[in-house]
Amino acid sequence: MPVTVVGSIAFDAVKAPSGEREKMLGGAAVHFALAASFFDDVHVVGPVGDDFGPAELAVLEARNVDVGDIEHVAGGRTFFWRGEYSDDFNSRETHETQLNVFEHFEPKLSDASQASDVLFLANIQPDLQRQVREQCDAARFVALDSMNLWIEIARDSLVKTIATVDCLILNDEELRQLTGKAKMVGAAREVLSWGGPSVVIAKLGEYGAALVTADDYFQMPAFPLETIVDPTGAGDTFAGGFVGYIAAHPGDERSQAMLRRAMAYGTALASFNVEDFGTDRVARLTGDEVSGRVAELEAIMHFSDTPLDLRD
Amino acid sequence: MPVTVVGSIAFDAVKAPSGEREKMLGGAAVHFALAASFFDDVHVVGPVGDDFGPAELAVLEARNVDVGDIEHVAGGRTFFWRGEYSDDFNSRETHETQLNVFEHFEPKLSDASQASDVLFLANIQPDLQRQVREQCDAARFVALDSMNLWIEIARDSLVKTIATVDCLILNDEELRQLTGKAKMVGAAREVLSWGGPSVVIAKLGEYGAALVTADDYFQMPAFPLETIVDPTGAGDTFAGGFVGYIAAHPGDERSQAMLRRAMAYGTALASFNVEDFGTDRVARLTGDEVSGRVAELEAIMHFSDTPLDLRD
Repeated sequence: MPVTVVGSIAFDAVKAPSGEREKMLGGAAVHFALAASFFDDVHVVGPVGDDFGPAELAVLEARNVDVGDIEHVAGGRTFFWRGEYSDDFNSRETHETQLNVFEHFEPKLSDASQASDVLFLANIQPDLQRQVREQCDAARFVALDSMNLWIEIARDSLVKTIATVDCLILNDEELRQLTGKAKMVGAAREVLSWGGPSVVIAKLGEYGAALVTADDYFQMPAFPLETIVDPTGAGDTFAGGFVGYIAAHPGDERSQAMLRRAMAYGTALASFNVEDFGTDRVARLTGDEVSGRVAELEAIMHFSDTPLDLRD
Repeated sequence: MPVTVVGSIAFDAVKAPSGEREKMLGGAAVHFALAASFFDDVHVVGPVGDDFGPAELAVLEARNVDVGDIEHVAGGRTFFWRGEYSDDFNSRETHETQLNVFEHFEPKLSDASQASDVLFLANIQPDLQRQVREQCDAARFVALDSMNLWIEIARDSLVKTIATVDCLILNDEELRQLTGKAKMVGAAREVLSWGGPSVVIAKLGEYGAALVTADDYFQMPAFPLETIVDPTGAGDTFAGGFVGYIAAHPGDERSQAMLRRAMAYGTALASFNVEDFGTDRVARLTGDEVSGRVAELEAIMHFSDTPLDLRD
C-alpha cells in the first residue's frame, strides 16, 4: 500500500567524535522516505527553499520516492539544524535551529498523497499533523511521531491528534513525559488506555525499541555495532522501516507476528543509517543487505528454553 | 556444580517512590546466593557484625544456602548502605556507606567453599578478589563483578584480576569506563581481546543485559514490569541466576545456547527481585514462578522473518 509522509526536509550540520559535516541532506521526512522506499511507493510532503536543488532531489528520486509534493518556497531557505554529539553518542546538543520555510508551512497534499493507505505524521506541530490526518481520511494505518517541545507547549493539541492515529512512535523519555508514568511499559499502556492508538512504539536509542499493544509486549535490541558515525535520523529511519513493512502487508496491520517483523526491518534500517553521515549509507543500501541484517537480528535474539527442575 | 560467592552481606536503607525501608537484609553476596540457590548448592563467604542475627541467617537457610563461611566479627557492625532512588528509578543517590566489618575483611574460605566448581567474585576490592581466586584454583567457571570506584582508584589491580576469570559482569557504563570505548559492544570486545574472560555481560539496567563472546552477541530485554518497588540488588540477582544456571550445566560452560538460556534465568530472577523491597520477593519465590517467567521471556522475544522481496 502506498505511504505518505509529512514532515521536515532539512539540511543538517553535525559534529561528532567520528567527524564533522557542514551541510547534509536530512530531515525526518527524508530519512523516513528513504527507509520506507524499500517496501512500497512513497510520497513525501514538505517545504524546501531555494538552496534545495537537483542533487538533493536526486537522492530521493534514486529510490523512486515521489517528490511531487515537495513544495518549493521561492525566496526561502530550507530548514536547518546544527548539533553536536557527546563522546559516547549518548547525548547531543542542538546549537542552532533555523525553521526557515518550515515556519509558515501549511501542508498541501496532492490527490495521490491523500489517497495513500498508510500515513506517517513525522514530528511537526500537532495542529498541522491533525490537519493532514483529516485530509487523509481513507488511510488505513496512521503513525505519528512527536517531541518533548510539543508535549510541553501544545500537549492538549498533541493528545487530540494522538486520538486520531493507529500508532504512536515516541522515545522512552517522551512517552514518560507525555503520560507522567515512571516506567516505559506503564507509559505505553497508559496511551493504549486512551482509546486512540492500538500500537505504541517506545524508541530506546542504543538499546533498541519496544512494541506495546493491548495483548503483546515485544522488545528488540538495536543491531550491535562496534562503532557508529552519525545517529542523526536513526529514529525516523526506524519508523520508515517499521511503517514501510506494515504498508507492504495490507490487511495484516493488526497481526502481532507481522508487527514484530516490522520492528526487525525498522531496526535493521536504523542500524545502517548510523554507519555513515546523513543519508549516505541508506542511499547506497540494497534490499539484500537489509534482509541479511534482519536474519542476523533473528539469530541474535533467538533462544529457547529447555526444561530444568529448579529447587524450591 | 556447587557455587561459592564472596562479597558483601549488608543492611540497606532505601528511599524510593514506592516507599521507604530503614533496615533490610541486602548485599551483593546475599542477593546472588538467593538467586543461585534455585540451581545448585551455594556457599556464602562474607563478614557480618553483632547486629546480624538469626532472622537474617534464616532467610538464607530457608533457601538451603550454606552460611558456614559467614564470618561473625565480634564487636563489629554489618556493612550498611543508605540510598535514594529518583522518581523514575533511573538514577540513585548514595546518602551513606558504612563499611564497618567490611573495612578489614580478609576472605577465609572453608574447604567446602574452596572446592566449588563455580565461583562468583562479587564487587569488592580487586586485590581481595584475586586472593580468593587463588584459593579456588579448582574452579571451572569464575565470574567477576566490580564497580566504577575500583576502575578509578585500582584499575591496574582490577585488570590483573579480570585476567584470571572466565566471565566479566559489569554495567554498560562501567564497561565503557574500563576500556575507554564509546560503545558497549566495542567495550565488551576490547575486554575479550585481553585474553582473560571469554564471556562478557553488559548489564543495561531497565533495558536488560547483553552477552558478548568471541563468536556471539545476544541481548535480552528486562522483563517488562509496569511498576517496580526496589531495584536494589537486581544486578546481583541477575548474576545469581546467570551463574547459577551455568553451575547446573557442568561441562557445558562454553555452549552459546546454554549461555543464552542462563541470561533468561538471570533476567527472570532479577525481575522478581525488583517487585518488592530487599530480598522479600526472591525469598518467597518458587521454581515454577521462575520457569513461568522464562517462558514468558521466550514469547516476548520470539520473532521469525518471512521472505520479502525488497525494492532496490
